[in-house]
Amino acid sequence: MTVLILTSEEDVTADMVVARLHTAGAPVMRLNPADLPGKAVLSADYAHGDFDGHLSVNGHVLSMGGLRSVWVRRPGEPAAHAAHPSPWLTAETRQALFGMLYSAPARWMNHPRDADRARLKPWQLRVAHLSGFAVPPTVFTTSPRLAREFAEEHRDVVVKSASGPPPGEPGVALPTTLIGPDTDFSAVAAGPALLQRYVPKRADIRLTCVGQQLFAARKAADPGQVDGRYGDTGHPWEPVAVPGRIAAAVREYVALASLAYAAFDFAEDEEGVWWFLECNQGGQFGFVELETGQPISAAVAHWLAHCTADRRVPGRR
Amino acid sequence: MTVLILTSEEDVTADMVVARLHTAGAPVMRLNPADLPGKAVLSADYAHGDFDGHLSVNGHVLSMGGLRSVWVRRPGEPAAHAAHPSPWLTAETRQALFGMLYSAPARWMNHPRDADRARLKPWQLRVAHLSGFAVPPTVFTTSPRLAREFAEEHRDVVVKSASGPPPGEPGVALPTTLIGPDTDFSAVAAGPALLQRYVPKRADIRLTCVGQQLFAARKAADPGQVDGRYGDTGHPWEPVAVPGRIAAAVREYVALASLAYAAFDFAEDEEGVWWFLECNQGGQFGFVELETGQPISAAVAHWLAHCTADRRVPGRR
Repeated sequence: MTVLILTSEEDVTADMVVARLHTAGAPVMRLNPADLPGKAVLSADYAHGDFDGHLSVNGHVLSMGGLRSVWVRRPGEPAAHAAHPSPWLTAETRQALFGMLYSAPARWMNHPRDADRARLKPWQLRVAHLSGFAVPPTVFTTSPRLAREFAEEHRDVVVKSASGPPPGEPGVALPTTLIGPDTDFSAVAAGPALLQRYVPKRADIRLTCVGQQLFAARKAADPGQVDGRYGDTGHPWEPVAVPGRIAAAVREYVALASLAYAAFDFAEDEEGVWWFLECNQGGQFGFVELETGQPISAAVAHWLAHCTADRRVPGRR
Repeated sequence: MTVLILTSEEDVTADMVVARLHTAGAPVMRLNPADLPGKAVLSADYAHGDFDGHLSVNGHVLSMGGLRSVWVRRPGEPAAHAAHPSPWLTAETRQALFGMLYSAPARWMNHPRDADRARLKPWQLRVAHLSGFAVPPTVFTTSPRLAREFAEEHRDVVVKSASGPPPGEPGVALPTTLIGPDTDFSAVAAGPALLQRYVPKRADIRLTCVGQQLFAARKAADPGQVDGRYGDTGHPWEPVAVPGRIAAAVREYVALASLAYAAFDFAEDEEGVWWFLECNQGGQFGFVELETGQPISAAVAHWLAHCTADRRVPGRR
């Protein structure tokens, strides 16, 4: 039973997991969907009430009946490396590849349809509420009046992007920014704003969930620090125990969201409360593993190589 | 409790359903996501472990607590009508709108994540098998050799697009085309081909499923006709009874695919067997209703206005 990893060529994090899988003797196929058609060949047969499919990369052949799991890491766009790429060729190739993979009874880390939903920040906050996390009051709005009222009520407020920085090269940094109630909110009418009550924090927490395994790391924050992702504070990431209440909430969250992998970000306040900031279903773990020594890549490899597929309904997630 | 219809301005099919909803006295809000932000205003609050959201269009306000159902008809791209549209503004607006709607306990026809999966043709064939339909043997392949072998085995084969015609204006027609085993298959290596055994048919069948209600229509086919969508054969659509075995398979299919609405296309062969060709989760029904008098728009309106939302998990589909 083979593990299929969908990612691009340069992916050090995938390399870490592939090395673990090789050590464990687990068969692996690595495919960049951008290389299909071309370096990769696909064929899926639907006949006589049954289904069989094959994927061939560099002469290695994977039968869909032998597919244990799919790890969606950083896949390129289907057919992006084709001799004559086009939006239509990408659409046709996406149909063929993902239609075939969805037909197989493999397990996914994470299934694209769960990943798509899990990226929606407002939905994340609702699921975080239902899972029992402490969540800072937050508003998404296109109303300047409501944005101003929110800032007046909560005084110290941060503004951030819901979808991330604008796409394109060169990249634009969009750090979470502290603002006050005197801000001019008129531009909110031109694009939705995400405002959140600022949580004064003594540390950032990154909690990585792999199946049922949890790995939490803590990095001390300087007083008044808003966004720890930009600039080096000199504080290292260190392993930290997961409080029981947090563990229960994490397991509830990933169950509600149908996620096999998730990276949670929390702000730890002066009382030690972990405030839910976001859950990134595709969050990086390489930097945490390197700094803390936590065996996250081994946990990912173990999940991919040992999970048991749900064979009742192919692709049902 | 209000019905929200996501569609563009010019949508005669939506007009038919809106008229039925007005007659029934059911509150309706119509929104084109392209008009957000701008004509429409949105605000979603996540505080104190709870959630509340509002959508305002032309001075009418809809609270998420009063949202019964969402009909995803033909929505424009979020923020497409903004003064300064951009991919980033679309991404931010999509986050705000769909993140808020996913947080509400409404029912969907169809939920976008179910719709996305249901569009994958190879997955459709697998689910059709599992549901008990007769499905013509089909192959999706990028291998010229396997394409040729399939054509040699089945002799009369049609080739069609999986994703539909290429996007763009002016539109390109891509009718399903009959080919023989002598065809040159070398171009298959450049893009996946969908080949299917040709079903000589005496009629086309369009079966529309709305919740648990089924409406089947039949149009006689001329001998040798391949794709009834292009060209007028002069035969009308007429209501036809749904065989019990087909009704059971349709209900199994929409359950496996989590669809509230689906339009099935079948080819009826000389023995009267209905062969599954495809299931379009967003298929048109206006032309069937006009020709057959079947009350499909009334069924859609009834489902939207009377369905009971699953209030256990918001947006969970």
